[in-house]
Amino acid sequence: MIKIGIIGVGTVGSSVIKILQKNRDIITARAGKEIIPALGVVKNLDKDRGVDIPLSNDIDDILNDDSIDVVVELMGGVDEAFEVVKKALAKGKAVVTANKAMLAYHRYELQQSANRNAIGFEASVAGGIPIIKALREGLSANHIKSIKGIMNGTCNYMLTKMMNEGVEFDEILAEAQKLGYAEADPSFDIGGFDAAHKLLILASIAYGIDAKPEDILIEGIENINSEDIFFANEFGYNIKLLTIAKKSAESVELRVHPALIRKSEMLAKVDGVMNGVSVVGDCVGETMYYGPGAGGDATASSVIADIIDIVRNGNNSPMLGFKKILEDDVLKLKNADEIYTKYYLRVEVEDRIGVLSGISNILGEYDISINSFLQKQSQNSKHATLLFSTHKCYEKDIRNAIAKINKCDFVKRKSAMIRIEE
Amino acid sequence: MIKIGIIGVGTVGSSVIKILQKNRDIITARAGKEIIPALGVVKNLDKDRGVDIPLSNDIDDILNDDSIDVVVELMGGVDEAFEVVKKALAKGKAVVTANKAMLAYHRYELQQSANRNAIGFEASVAGGIPIIKALREGLSANHIKSIKGIMNGTCNYMLTKMMNEGVEFDEILAEAQKLGYAEADPSFDIGGFDAAHKLLILASIAYGIDAKPEDILIEGIENINSEDIFFANEFGYNIKLLTIAKKSAESVELRVHPALIRKSEMLAKVDGVMNGVSVVGDCVGETMYYGPGAGGDATASSVIADIIDIVRNGNNSPMLGFKKILEDDVLKLKNADEIYTKYYLRVEVEDRIGVLSGISNILGEYDISINSFLQKQSQNSKHATLLFSTHKCYEKDIRNAIAKINKCDFVKRKSAMIRIEE
Repeated sequence: MIKIGIIGVGTVGSSVIKILQKNRDIITARAGKEIIPALGVVKNLDKDRGVDIPLSNDIDDILNDDSIDVVVELMGGVDEAFEVVKKALAKGKAVVTANKAMLAYHRYELQQSANRNAIGFEASVAGGIPIIKALREGLSANHIKSIKGIMNGTCNYMLTKMMNEGVEFDEILAEAQKLGYAEADPSFDIGGFDAAHKLLILASIAYGIDAKPEDILIEGIENINSEDIFFANEFGYNIKLLTIAKKSAESVELRVHPALIRKSEMLAKVDGVMNGVSVVGDCVGETMYYGPGAGGDATASSVIADIIDIVRNGNNSPMLGFKKILEDDVLKLKNADEIYTKYYLRVEVEDRIGVLSGISNILGEYDISINSFLQKQSQNSKHATLLFSTHKCYEKDIRNAIAKINKCDFVKRKSAMIRIEE
Repeated sequence: MIKIGIIGVGTVGSSVIKILQKNRDIITARAGKEIIPALGVVKNLDKDRGVDIPLSNDIDDILNDDSIDVVVELMGGVDEAFEVVKKALAKGKAVVTANKAMLAYHRYELQQSANRNAIGFEASVAGGIPIIKALREGLSANHIKSIKGIMNGTCNYMLTKMMNEGVEFDEILAEAQKLGYAEADPSFDIGGFDAAHKLLILASIAYGIDAKPEDILIEGIENINSEDIFFANEFGYNIKLLTIAKKSAESVELRVHPALIRKSEMLAKVDGVMNGVSVVGDCVGETMYYGPGAGGDATASSVIADIIDIVRNGNNSPMLGFKKILEDDVLKLKNADEIYTKYYLRVEVEDRIGVLSGISNILGEYDISINSFLQKQSQNSKHATLLFSTHKCYEKDIRNAIAKINKCDFVKRKSAMIRIEE
């Protein structure tokens, strides 16, 4: 019999407890031992959690209980959670965590303090999808060429609605908040930060690289509007908030931003609140993993899988796939200026002669050639919106070109840019 | 350093050897030890395999070499391979196999003779997709409600072509053979037997059930024609060869057959030679796994992942997810007669008054009600083809109804039936 203590009994924590009780028979048959949720720790003991286990408001009641073998950390936050996890590991307990923010900052320190078979974090990335396991173990023979993920359900729900129904951002956001798909303060999700934390965890497993959120390009979906959606539909693209990790000869680029991807790609078909992660390996080619990226029961599914692995003594891979950080040996993080891809541009201009040639001259100055072009009358009928896609060029050049375009007197609104990933 | 011996150096075997050599650095970094392909065994030593390791034509050269820790079995066949694997295990070697036919018959005997960490078989199902690991470890907290898989690339290539281009079966088969997507004798693939072997392996991991190929319903795609494709397109379905495992209260149904599935389902979007497996768990909901189901390098990716797991001492789950067969305790294999689903029917009839009411009377006798109906002129213009879909009914009833319909004098060709999975 294995006893576990759960720190944080919110949506996920109470699902973990209920599923361990409800599916006890099959979990015991698979793990080989019964797994008992023995104690939960909460801040406020007065609130009813709807769970049938003892609760305490003191984390030490778990840490100091030698009969508890596994600590499930669902308290959230970065530094306090990190201290708690370190203490639990130091006391010889195994730890399962869903805390992506903590891992985005402290994953390598944790790998150092944990023995093998002592830490599970499947639930930290893409909820119920076993993507950590797939990447760390299932694809371990491969050099990972790229990872492209749709890993924030809030953003994907909103973008799917915008694509399908042509509604504007603010309206969809209000609706998503009402449905509980978006937080009251949605900036962590729609700003791309949540997805970035997940990307950093996957990037460690793929590349052994110790990047922090501040080191990488993170853009949210706040500026996507119905004109962008119109262009995308017209040219056969979907717009998705993508997390991208890509390896070239000796560098890795890590970035989170909205992107146009071809509707025919499998990843483009991941709609609504669902998550999907496409991984390209040099031997296997493309594999993709699809499922619910959030929700109490789906996330609990991954938490409990990790506990079962610990009970089976089955997770003897190094926590992050490699024993140590590899980047010093071989890989450098690519500077965002050096991104080389296709771009979509939206420029709102005064509707008069000479404007289009003015813009194409500026693009030409920066060696950017236009691939497709579409002009739309703006709602303000004196203005026109020009929608371009470019051939491949460097990020630095497109940024400079846009800055110069924005300074032209005929440009009536700050221009927008979305990267095209093909 | 870990030395491996490879029995069978064909497409997959030579990929295993080449990838271990080409990706040696990253594989060593991940596994913690260097993995050396030390010896290959082939039947014909005269044939050039394009690999740079010693070859022998005697399996005992691997079995009796104490320096070889892991045996990779890629010889194919059922009983001889089983004997070789048992011998290797008895000598304390670990075994990695891609042999789904052997596992379809002998997986429980193998689980009994193998210690934990001694046998890997990820490559036996869906090639490069780590579906064994996902199901056995990633989803271990779940009662598995269903598994629906597209696990035969040959069939999926052919059906995709038929759906998209309206070409008839025989023409596509000839093309697939020319492209190397179908064998000279394609019956093992298009008859559904290959997919059935894979289903049985997954069913053991999901349900602990020891079914053999002869115990389950297996139908191939040989009888699908362009009229079926027409109906499917008209009503928003794709036709896929599906492997289905489904649990109801105390029984499991296992079946392989072509099925109509809604185009909007993620699984319906798995096209061409690609494989996809959708798994529904009671906590996680639906997750789906997509990737190449065949090919030397993709299959080798899974073989090597298993070797790395063995080196990491990381596969300590029971081989089949449970220590023993569970079905005696709780689950029975459902009889095919008891399948309860919607059906599509194709009936070719003489084009005259009274025929339609004759058929609907027969369906009514068996409590089968029609959901949609479409009549098409046959190429032979004196005949009409009637295409129906039904509401849910029992397989036994639909079979009896079809038998009775086929006996009517106005029926001009044996009627066809395809199950609808929604």
